Amino acid sequence: MNFADKLFEAIEKKQNPSVVGLDPRIANIPDSIKEERVSKFGDTPQAVAASFVAFNKGIIDAVKDVVPAVKPQMAFYECYGPYGVEAFQVTCKYAKRNGLVVIEDAKRNDIGSTALAYAKGHLGEVDTVKGKTTLFDVDAITVNSYPGSDGVKPFVEQAKNGKGAFLLVKTSNPSSGELQDKKLADGITVYEAMAKLVDTWGSEVVGERGYSSIGAVVGATYPEEATKLRQLMPKTPFLVPGYGAQGGGAMDTMPCFNDDGYGAIVNSSRGIIFAYQKRGGEFEEAAKEAALDMKVDLENALLQKGIYPW
Amino acid sequence: MNFADKLFEAIEKKQNPSVVGLDPRIANIPDSIKEERVSKFGDTPQAVAASFVAFNKGIIDAVKDVVPAVKPQMAFYECYGPYGVEAFQVTCKYAKRNGLVVIEDAKRNDIGSTALAYAKGHLGEVDTVKGKTTLFDVDAITVNSYPGSDGVKPFVEQAKNGKGAFLLVKTSNPSSGELQDKKLADGITVYEAMAKLVDTWGSEVVGERGYSSIGAVVGATYPEEATKLRQLMPKTPFLVPGYGAQGGGAMDTMPCFNDDGYGAIVNSSRGIIFAYQKRGGEFEEAAKEAALDMKVDLENALLQKGIYPW
Repeated sequence: MNFADKLFEAIEKKQNPSVVGLDPRIANIPDSIKEERVSKFGDTPQAVAASFVAFNKGIIDAVKDVVPAVKPQMAFYECYGPYGVEAFQVTCKYAKRNGLVVIEDAKRNDIGSTALAYAKGHLGEVDTVKGKTTLFDVDAITVNSYPGSDGVKPFVEQAKNGKGAFLLVKTSNPSSGELQDKKLADGITVYEAMAKLVDTWGSEVVGERGYSSIGAVVGATYPEEATKLRQLMPKTPFLVPGYGAQGGGAMDTMPCFNDDGYGAIVNSSRGIIFAYQKRGGEFEEAAKEAALDMKVDLENALLQKGIYPW
Repeated sequence: MNFADKLFEAIEKKQNPSVVGLDPRIANIPDSIKEERVSKFGDTPQAVAASFVAFNKGIIDAVKDVVPAVKPQMAFYECYGPYGVEAFQVTCKYAKRNGLVVIEDAKRNDIGSTALAYAKGHLGEVDTVKGKTTLFDVDAITVNSYPGSDGVKPFVEQAKNGKGAFLLVKTSNPSSGELQDKKLADGITVYEAMAKLVDTWGSEVVGERGYSSIGAVVGATYPEEATKLRQLMPKTPFLVPGYGAQGGGAMDTMPCFNDDGYGAIVNSSRGIIFAYQKRGGEFEEAAKEAALDMKVDLENALLQKGIYPW
């Protein structure tokens, strides 16, 4: 099944175009979880990784009936080495087993055979000495396409096998404009030029719902830019960071949607997984409540814009 | 010690501005190495990872007196999951113990606290439950700075502690121009705009030799562009891919050097580590010969250009 079809079917089923960012930080994980692992593994990366797994399983159990997808951020796992990467694998497997779409946020990028290694490693199969095996097998991955199509093609190939990629177009951070907003001689900006490339690259892998499996990352913090980008990339699914902790509101994400009420999935990480630190109570319950609040928040915005699809 | 000082001291000591790319591919590793590991671990990612370590140790032993640095490409390791990442760690540790500068090619990038996680994880210390620990501790890492300064600052901070980063400016691949060569309204190209940003970001961490610890990736396959870039970033060390297998010759890399004969380090991966497949004989000896040939090749080019510094 085409990734875009799979993603929007999952969104339709949950009636919720949001994704929970699984970005664990050891300082924010409940003490009870950490203490048990430290007593078992000592104050080691292994204890951190085991804490991440326990925490993530709790979050996944709590939100799996509310959201269609999770987005683990690889940086927070790989910085703990092999144990961290294993925790990432276990988290992805657990999320998939619970029916969630898994979007790996890794912003990988390279050229030629190296890009191929990333695409095969994260989305497909890699060669062993005599055969093949899968290691991560996530549904989609974020990609930085500054190097151009040589670096994107291996991900487009994986998209022909049901996988997806979201390419950075306009990132949500304050300094994203330093390069991305520069005006080109032909009047458009760098991020608009990138959008045109993404639209072209994705044209090969459009699914039955009319969306491509090659998506774009477009920050909720830049609604005016998103309006332009939605027009430049009508068939591209937008992965939208910047809601919540980074300052974007639900209405700010609306330009990322098409008139059919589809076309975007909005991410929240800290605002959901560490909700217990603000709301009190058990972390699982707080996360579920925060995920439900976000669902209602997006619902209201879609209704207000007159594009609520369900 | 400032990373740039460390790098150019190592280059001076070996009188060789080249770096060996440790990009293992299981299909190209000698059968004798693989068979031993498969009989021990089965046809698994663990066998692949163990083969990588054995192969890399052989290469490092062979080239350590010839070259100042190695550049392991993370993609080829992480695509084998936790075992692959562990093989990467072991390789880096072994290279450092043998006096080599280790430049991790990972092209990591993100924003804010996520970029911080990458910078701390690969170059610095990460938090355990109660303390801190180091996982990779490489000397420098490649970074894609499409997201702007929010994503670069954490690496500049690490550069204040003796670490370095090389930011993608003009990549060596055929399609690098699709975005990077676009003309801006003010007459320069996207890659030149990126170069100006890199020059600014690196100005805080210039060492005693006059070079910054924030470097740039500039492909040997684009010598004209490199000439312009050398002028735009006079204090920036260039990491130069594209020599050898990708088609760049030694003279093509010369625009990446300054008139002092310093300022660049040229990478070769396949052309050295898999030289035995063309030259025959043991892989270690073939790699050493190929590394020596490359040294002479660069030496002749530096002499021809009249900037041989030793």
